[in-house]
Amino acid sequence: MKKIMNNPENVVDEMLEGLLLAHSNKLKSIRKDNRSLIRVDAPVKDKVGIVTGGGSGHLPLFLGYVGKGMLDGVAVGDIFQSPSSQQMLDVIRAVNSGKGVLNLFGNYGGDVMNFDMASELADMEGIQVESVVSTDDVASMPKGQEEKRRGVAGMFYMYKLAGAKAETGASLEEVKRIAEKANKSIRTMGVALSPCTLPAVGRPTFHIEEGKMEIGMGIHGEPGVKTGELESADSIAETLVNSILADMPVSAGNDVSVLINGLGATPLEELYIVYRKVHKLLEEKGIHVYSRYIGEFATSLEMVGLSVSILKLDDELQELLDAPFDTPFFSQN
Amino acid sequence: MKKIMNNPENVVDEMLEGLLLAHSNKLKSIRKDNRSLIRVDAPVKDKVGIVTGGGSGHLPLFLGYVGKGMLDGVAVGDIFQSPSSQQMLDVIRAVNSGKGVLNLFGNYGGDVMNFDMASELADMEGIQVESVVSTDDVASMPKGQEEKRRGVAGMFYMYKLAGAKAETGASLEEVKRIAEKANKSIRTMGVALSPCTLPAVGRPTFHIEEGKMEIGMGIHGEPGVKTGELESADSIAETLVNSILADMPVSAGNDVSVLINGLGATPLEELYIVYRKVHKLLEEKGIHVYSRYIGEFATSLEMVGLSVSILKLDDELQELLDAPFDTPFFSQN
Repeated sequence: MKKIMNNPENVVDEMLEGLLLAHSNKLKSIRKDNRSLIRVDAPVKDKVGIVTGGGSGHLPLFLGYVGKGMLDGVAVGDIFQSPSSQQMLDVIRAVNSGKGVLNLFGNYGGDVMNFDMASELADMEGIQVESVVSTDDVASMPKGQEEKRRGVAGMFYMYKLAGAKAETGASLEEVKRIAEKANKSIRTMGVALSPCTLPAVGRPTFHIEEGKMEIGMGIHGEPGVKTGELESADSIAETLVNSILADMPVSAGNDVSVLINGLGATPLEELYIVYRKVHKLLEEKGIHVYSRYIGEFATSLEMVGLSVSILKLDDELQELLDAPFDTPFFSQN
Repeated sequence: MKKIMNNPENVVDEMLEGLLLAHSNKLKSIRKDNRSLIRVDAPVKDKVGIVTGGGSGHLPLFLGYVGKGMLDGVAVGDIFQSPSSQQMLDVIRAVNSGKGVLNLFGNYGGDVMNFDMASELADMEGIQVESVVSTDDVASMPKGQEEKRRGVAGMFYMYKLAGAKAETGASLEEVKRIAEKANKSIRTMGVALSPCTLPAVGRPTFHIEEGKMEIGMGIHGEPGVKTGELESADSIAETLVNSILADMPVSAGNDVSVLINGLGATPLEELYIVYRKVHKLLEEKGIHVYSRYIGEFATSLEMVGLSVSILKLDDELQELLDAPFDTPFFSQN
């Protein structure tokens, strides 16, 4: 895999420099190393601050979701590496308007440990801090052990819903309740057809044989839960939808939102081919697709593959999902 | 290259079916074969209709630009193939509100021939039709033969500017003037690092050796104008910016908009690394980057590479560029 870069060691720094040159009207850096970024208007008065953080290589995750109606700040790690607790703490401090801060992040060892430490330090400074960890990947752990699952692309919905709630001026407790409810209502499963290459390593992170695919892939370049035959688009859609529905309480008459997420190198055309089948499968079961997001929301560099996320809606979540947002990467009127 | 699809022959039909299931609130089909799509509210009263068309495999080009503030309809061909003149004619008829129709498309043999025929037939039916052909690829023909150049990602700006003008209720003549002015003010140049694979063929369209790149690539899977050593991101940015600036009358004090377009499999991180250098090179020359678009705007399936487009702005184009638009793939407030 050939890459467009300068020195591999500078990939994240140069990406961040480009990002800040491009979006200085929406984002600002609060550290010399640019690893802590916040909304230009943060702290937003009378609003709970929402913070995320995680490794690089997943654009638009994580920093693409900082903006009005979504998140207030982000700590940025190296490729697939957790940012430091100090970088997180700097973001927490900078977005706190006095109404408290909610950390939302994926369930990965380094991120959990560093956010725990940052929260403790912030608490000692008198900042009210809560955390909700995203655990939407059904393939990563069996039913009954939901809290041990990884966080993948469905995190988008948690950001969106909690972000919309925070914009209403709700309390930290209320915004946290929405984030928890969102996480409980989201399931994701994906497949990877070929791996990605870390810029500093120069060779693929694992190998997938011709004619095979990994089922239940992670988003950090790790292999899937199991290897299977490469199936047709319709068959992949069926596997993913059936696994998700077997794991969540959605039934005929329910409204859902669907996210089809490309992992990096999968053409948008293929995402629509999969959406076609996902839509039909759900409608056949009497489940109504209220809205959908199709594109790249959480990538792993140039990995080939996709994931499907389903969010179960009720009136409260539906209203929050429809609320406007505006980030450098996405907007919704 | 592994693909997520069913029968390769059905890729375009199934993609269109998925697209129409996903975006029925914004797009509708006017043919049984779904190869002619229009805005749900077309024909828009007292507005010039704007039509495009071209092969599939370039999402979000072409059909991603149909929507309020952009285009009214699109004829959709097979992968990298022109749609038929009949498919184009159906779109032209359907978007004509009585104020005439403007065809905007890239300079490729099949598209030019079929749009010429469709325009003639529409004219015989009493529909006023004009065409402007996009020719922004500086690498495809030398200076002095601009009208023979290919149309690539810079077409986005022609759609945007003409689309905004049409929304004001301007006459066909006026909208055409803006499209021509836009095309004269846009230059694009790109590089490809690896090729793409046609679903029905199953092997790459051409070969690029390890350590090499194609300079001045097309967007139909064809090789570039010349092969060179794979350079650093900064060096690629310099080559592209210098070639573009040598070709267009932009100088210190001018405002420009910059489009960094990924060809399919290039991570967004790399596009920002290139934007960083492009921004610095322009600012060093006293050229002000008024706005920028960074992402995938015209792809070639899973090709690896990118292009840089520069649009020279004046007050008139700046105002049109800032106007809102809303399509299934993009929106701007």
